[in-house]
Amino acid sequence: MELAILFGGASFEHEISIVSAITLKEKMRSYDLKFVFCDQDHRFYLIDGNHMQAKTFASGAYKKMPRLSLDISSFVQKKRFGTQTYTFTILNLIHGADGEDGTISSMLDFYKISYIGPRTAASVLSYDKRYTKWLAESLGIKAVEYEIVYKDTVHKIKMALPFIVKPSCLGSSIGVSVVRQESEIDYALDVAFEFDESVIIEPFLEGVKEYNLAGYAAGENMVYSMIEEPQKDDFLDFDKKYLDFSRSSIVSAADLDEEVVKRFEHVFERIYRNRFEGALIRCDFFMIEGEIYLNEINPIPGSMANYLFTDFESCIQELMSHLPSKQMPTVDYKYIHSIHAAKGK
Amino acid sequence: MELAILFGGASFEHEISIVSAITLKEKMRSYDLKFVFCDQDHRFYLIDGNHMQAKTFASGAYKKMPRLSLDISSFVQKKRFGTQTYTFTILNLIHGADGEDGTISSMLDFYKISYIGPRTAASVLSYDKRYTKWLAESLGIKAVEYEIVYKDTVHKIKMALPFIVKPSCLGSSIGVSVVRQESEIDYALDVAFEFDESVIIEPFLEGVKEYNLAGYAAGENMVYSMIEEPQKDDFLDFDKKYLDFSRSSIVSAADLDEEVVKRFEHVFERIYRNRFEGALIRCDFFMIEGEIYLNEINPIPGSMANYLFTDFESCIQELMSHLPSKQMPTVDYKYIHSIHAAKGK
Repeated sequence: MELAILFGGASFEHEISIVSAITLKEKMRSYDLKFVFCDQDHRFYLIDGNHMQAKTFASGAYKKMPRLSLDISSFVQKKRFGTQTYTFTILNLIHGADGEDGTISSMLDFYKISYIGPRTAASVLSYDKRYTKWLAESLGIKAVEYEIVYKDTVHKIKMALPFIVKPSCLGSSIGVSVVRQESEIDYALDVAFEFDESVIIEPFLEGVKEYNLAGYAAGENMVYSMIEEPQKDDFLDFDKKYLDFSRSSIVSAADLDEEVVKRFEHVFERIYRNRFEGALIRCDFFMIEGEIYLNEINPIPGSMANYLFTDFESCIQELMSHLPSKQMPTVDYKYIHSIHAAKGK
Repeated sequence: MELAILFGGASFEHEISIVSAITLKEKMRSYDLKFVFCDQDHRFYLIDGNHMQAKTFASGAYKKMPRLSLDISSFVQKKRFGTQTYTFTILNLIHGADGEDGTISSMLDFYKISYIGPRTAASVLSYDKRYTKWLAESLGIKAVEYEIVYKDTVHKIKMALPFIVKPSCLGSSIGVSVVRQESEIDYALDVAFEFDESVIIEPFLEGVKEYNLAGYAAGENMVYSMIEEPQKDDFLDFDKKYLDFSRSSIVSAADLDEEVVKRFEHVFERIYRNRFEGALIRCDFFMIEGEIYLNEINPIPGSMANYLFTDFESCIQELMSHLPSKQMPTVDYKYIHSIHAAKGK
């Protein structure tokens, strides 16, 4: 089956999704990739590979391309006479809202279209940073302490300075600030509340070591990327992250003992199993005093974290052949029939 | 705007959703209700009120009714010449999978159709009983202890007998057993695993008092139903629950002090706020030694728990006028433009 990259979405990360998609086109040259663009109004377009350039979207030229709609098992293009159907396996590359909040996974599940990407429950648990904390806690995995502040409520932050202020549900460092002085708090909150109704506050850990690990399940086996120690000043700002989404050359692995690598992989597997099957995810960890802390789960990492894998194309092929299928119950109207039988008595 | 009941779905609770919908038709006589049926293959049909009888569905006669599909802002019926659009407010009455797991909410959000029902994150947190435990824990609300067992893994249950075995993600008592002896464990697990990949085990609390409370937010105000002490033998079995979905006469309130009622309402509000806005939900509580325990959240209760409200029709009217709207980000291609500008330097 053909693989189609689904990108765009009504998301603050719409543009970086475009960058991600263009990057994958460059990276996955052995595939005959198709491209389905979801614009900010939730309309789908089939984009020819030759038009996979930023200007196609920024200029609105995409609107001249074939419009698609979803139907059971396929995308459909209306033609003057009849319709053309496209049966793709989708690679969900919509970052942020729509792609990572469970919307797209639900749609694809409903329409019975197979896809690479997190399923709905996994999306919800990783999209909202509060729920990621709950997940870590329930698994006995360490996560840094946090406080939640809701918009339009009186808030009294107990956490000591310096701290980080983040919208609860946004990736790519959008709306994130480091607050070092009390005078900066209100502005940081205002910025974060532009993007979300709730905000998460975490201590700013000076000079903490960060490690990123990507992976996926191929049936019983877990497949891991190398572990990268990302470069950072304070924390990655949006412009840096933006470039991050266009990375395509393989990085060097962090200098870690084999035993430490195994510990990271073990934590990753516990997060992944029974939850993220079907997705290639990246977990961002901290290492604090020899202990592994979960910082974030990226269920659709920028350009699929291709730069962490030595043979990315084979990974996608392997993942495609291990996609979960949703159990569909059979409805036999047994209860309705039995009630009618009882009434007939 | 017209209110349409959406019911059915590819769910083990498909049939009770039909019963729920028929019950609401009887109950909401002052509305000109429309009915949209989602069959087990995920096809939508517009059902005439006169055909809202169990046999329409059990016999397959619904397939002769107008087929609908989803488009931005409306349901659409293809006609010989052109299409007819229907702009409904939807009352999501699909119980279990599809309706309560975040699928339908995601679809309606994506297509920008307003609806009564839980949003996607709220659905995920209430659909999976494990996540409901996390929610209670994070809010400091008591919940009975539990263990999780996964299908196809070696399991050693630590909990003392007697205990209840439930599929993690099913409502309406489907697949639920009370286990009193060690010899019954395997069978109870087999039954539960027929419906889900994971199973939750809780102590069976003999003679515990159960209280059900429904409610919703109308903007700043919370509106509560009366509190019912449901009748039960051991626990409600599926046949009982099935009848439960067709309840339409108002029950008598449990005999509780005003102060106790306020305590239940306070716990309800903490569960509901910043999460369930747009939905009328029912929380099922236990009272153990004077303490309130959250048992279950029903984000789409059977026949919308109409029997707990003295003026149900006005409640739905009020809820309809307080539906949340999803924040849609504006995409201005600022980053793509700025990168192009930088490249041009």
